[in-house]
Amino acid sequence: MKKPAISDTPILDQLRDRWSPRAFSNRPVPLESLRSLMEAARWAPSCFNVQPWRFIVATRDGGDEFQTALSCLVEGNQKWAQHAPLLLLVAAQMNFDDGKKNPHAFYDTGQAMAHLSVQATALGLFIHQMAGIVHDKIVQTYGLPDGFETVCAAAIGYYGETDSLDGKLHDMEVAPRARRALSESFFSGAWDRPAAV
Amino acid sequence: MKKPAISDTPILDQLRDRWSPRAFSNRPVPLESLRSLMEAARWAPSCFNVQPWRFIVATRDGGDEFQTALSCLVEGNQKWAQHAPLLLLVAAQMNFDDGKKNPHAFYDTGQAMAHLSVQATALGLFIHQMAGIVHDKIVQTYGLPDGFETVCAAAIGYYGETDSLDGKLHDMEVAPRARRALSESFFSGAWDRPAAV
Repeated sequence: MKKPAISDTPILDQLRDRWSPRAFSNRPVPLESLRSLMEAARWAPSCFNVQPWRFIVATRDGGDEFQTALSCLVEGNQKWAQHAPLLLLVAAQMNFDDGKKNPHAFYDTGQAMAHLSVQATALGLFIHQMAGIVHDKIVQTYGLPDGFETVCAAAIGYYGETDSLDGKLHDMEVAPRARRALSESFFSGAWDRPAAV
Repeated sequence: MKKPAISDTPILDQLRDRWSPRAFSNRPVPLESLRSLMEAARWAPSCFNVQPWRFIVATRDGGDEFQTALSCLVEGNQKWAQHAPLLLLVAAQMNFDDGKKNPHAFYDTGQAMAHLSVQATALGLFIHQMAGIVHDKIVQTYGLPDGFETVCAAAIGYYGETDSLDGKLHDMEVAPRARRALSESFFSGAWDRPAAV
């Protein structure tokens, strides 16, 4: 299913066509595509180039490792994410090497994931990020060292069958995409004064 | 100056060619390009679609508004960012509507900025994000409401003259881009166990 951004303003195809589905096909993600996703994230910018992002990768053909990663999602997400061929668990290094807090750790990790998602769209893949993860379980299962925090997870794969979802999940899948107007996010001169574009 | 990502793995041109220069031309950013940058950020994903990002936009032809925004950067950044035709100051809404903390506010704001930067690259523009801002000054100058935090700033424009920078700034401008190996960011099964790709 296609759900392009609803806009008269031209933006890059890979930004326009990106959206977050729940109906994934079980078709595997080719290894060379996975490598491109990782490489896209790798070249994201970050404060002092510290690259705070870390990703735990689990592919469905990895067997137990996939089930382990899946069990780190809240149940509501497991229900649909179990069909995706690829899961990512995302963590961030919260301090600089000198021990001081890096206030941009989450921000830059978001940039890396955005790069990855743009690359995914370029490869015909879809990605659905999830806040609903079991943080403590990830820390314990994978042995996160001090100084790292769990952030979120993502399911990645090709689009499946919209009708494989039922009830509320189906309703969300077919709901139109929506965003605030630019005038509510972009200001000029003072807060809440819309930028003149 | 071009500084493509150094990689044998194919990634989208707009990710490969993005880097963060300090030598900006004073050529203005066309209004339709600015609109596309904003629209690209607008369609980024966010937790519960709350779109926590806010941007204060200042164009050099805006006169006083540009100087005001520029004065919110630390001096070291003003030195080179003053030549860019477009500055953004970035803020994030830290709570959901019910008052609970949104742990993904910075992460999602990073995603919006990454979308904007990919669109910038597609338009032949460059963007340099800055952690070095005077947070209190932004809060006071623009009247940020409670619940919002300043995040960072960005200079945007066309590339200028590398030799317009001197000393350490010039050295940084011509330094090769570098990133950790994928094996140090992407794990599988356990922390620090490199994903097999």
